[in-house]
Amino acid sequence: MKPYVHTVQYYETDKMGITHHSNYIRWMEEARVDFLKQEGLDYAGLEEEGIVSPTIEVNCKYKKSTTFPDTVQITVHVRAFNGVKLFLVYEMKTDDQKTVAEAESVHCFLNKEGKPVRMEKEYPALYNKLRSLVEETA
Amino acid sequence: MKPYVHTVQYYETDKMGITHHSNYIRWMEEARVDFLKQEGLDYAGLEEEGIVSPTIEVNCKYKKSTTFPDTVQITVHVRAFNGVKLFLVYEMKTDDQKTVAEAESVHCFLNKEGKPVRMEKEYPALYNKLRSLVEETA
Amino acid sequence: MKPYVHTVQYYETDKMGITHHSNYIRWMEEARVDFLKQEGLDYAGLEEEGIVSPTIEVNCKYKKSTTFPDTVQITVHVRAFNGVKLFLVYEMKTDDQKTVAEAESVHCFLNKEGKPVRMEKEYPALYNKLRSLVEETA
Amino acid sequence: MKPYVHTVQYYETDKMGITHHSNYIRWMEEARVDFLKQEGLDYAGLEEEGIVSPTIEVNCKYKKSTTFPDTVQITVHVRAFNGVKLFLVYEMKTDDQKTVAEAESVHCFLNKEGKPVRMEKEYPALYNKLRSLVEETA
Repeated sequence: MKPYVHTVQYYETDKMGITHHSNYIRWMEEARVDFLKQEGLDYAGLEEEGIVSPTIEVNCKYKKSTTFPDTVQITVHVRAFNGVKLFLVYEMKTDDQKTVAEAESVHCFLNKEGKPVRMEKEYPALYNKLRSLVEETA
Repeated sequence: MKPYVHTVQYYETDKMGITHHSNYIRWMEEARVDFLKQEGLDYAGLEEEGIVSPTIEVNCKYKKSTTFPDTVQITVHVRAFNGVKLFLVYEMKTDDQKTVAEAESVHCFLNKEGKPVRMEKEYPALYNKLRSLVEETA
Repeated sequence: MKPYVHTVQYYETDKMGITHHSNYIRWMEEARVDFLKQEGLDYAGLEEEGIVSPTIEVNCKYKKSTTFPDTVQITVHVRAFNGVKLFLVYEMKTDDQKTVAEAESVHCFLNKEGKPVRMEKEYPALYNKLRSLVEETA
Repeated sequence: MKPYVHTVQYYETDKMGITHHSNYIRWMEEARVDFLKQEGLDYAGLEEEGIVSPTIEVNCKYKKSTTFPDTVQITVHVRAFNGVKLFLVYEMKTDDQKTVAEAESVHCFLNKEGKPVRMEKEYPALYNKLRSLVEETA
């Protein structure tokens, strides 16, 4: 799995001269979509099938500030998947491998009616794929 | 019509120490929604009826920079409405009436199929309201 | 202390039809600045005195989605302040008091050289004010 | 000169299901920085030398909507440079060369005191480079 690389944009900085902390939450999404794609899971495709996956929790610890035009390497791991909730972990590093941020997010899976998807039964291939990602990481 | 007041947020500033220029485009939307509401037009309600109104052009001239935590007063006028396109004009001022920015936006009206709404025929009340806003402004 | 009220903007929604989760992190900042102001602490003023207060951790649990043009009421409490780190807690509710999100943030205080401010010694008034906010909340 | 490629992010979409129009203004900045870099001009480097280049006007005509996870190719041209103002033109296209948006921006150059830089005299190399970019484009 290749790290996702985000280049800090000028519009992501704030008057402190550094990247505004809210943007890291957005980069987590960028990295998550890229990670799933590298694993063969197409997020836009899931939505077309009628599954949305809202974020139900985020946590981010900021270790080292970044600014325009730094590049940040983001690695994503699946910490757990219980059929209902997906727990992801993110490591953000500078090009010389200094830790920029450590983050986590939790996601659920809903159908078009906003009800939780019974994934193991209704989408067994997706269920097995997500389960296998936990093992790969462990 | 009362001006819409936006308070510049810290996350809207950039490393130049001033509000990033892209945010003014977002404030135009905030002021537009507020203006329509003051005129009795509920944008969310239009969407529920099946009308969306995409932005098809924006123009903004930046005259004076702002920064956190300035307040900006935004006045909106309807410059023209021909039944198909709505042309809006925005004046953004500091509290002491110095011009911050002058802007324009153009919008069309589409139904759920993405086709232009025949507004005069299908939504005569909305058509007449938007026409009357042009006259008020002239 | 009055709750801070944020009106969800159209540009804050995403294609799921709800507020994008990253915006809540920005609303925490809006509410934090408002809370400090209500308590007599001017964040922009602190920066002019040479103190910046970066965010070093955020956590947000999303309980109920919101969308344009909902209003969200945000209450801020000081959970702890040890002279170095400030721990804030946020409750976000709908107008009818349903919980939208529960969040926390941690902040430090740096001088212009990027070094931690020795607040008790150098800024005793600010130190005592922040300490007193913990007691008020307890 | 290679077009700059932006991948539309989920957080850039809105409840209409398409990219929110304000993001194109941000992509203009991304493409501008990339264009200058390809031409050997380092925007962050200019700032270190004490030159900032605020945006004083933007215009964007939206021709075709985009959404997550489309890729948009952005080509930048220098339309004019008179020693004081830089006029840029942007063409945004889908991968199959359909026009997404046509845009323009105007920029000035200020020193640390916020005064216009006398570029021909003070930064002749930069002046000549920007002048040459106009000819290349013509």
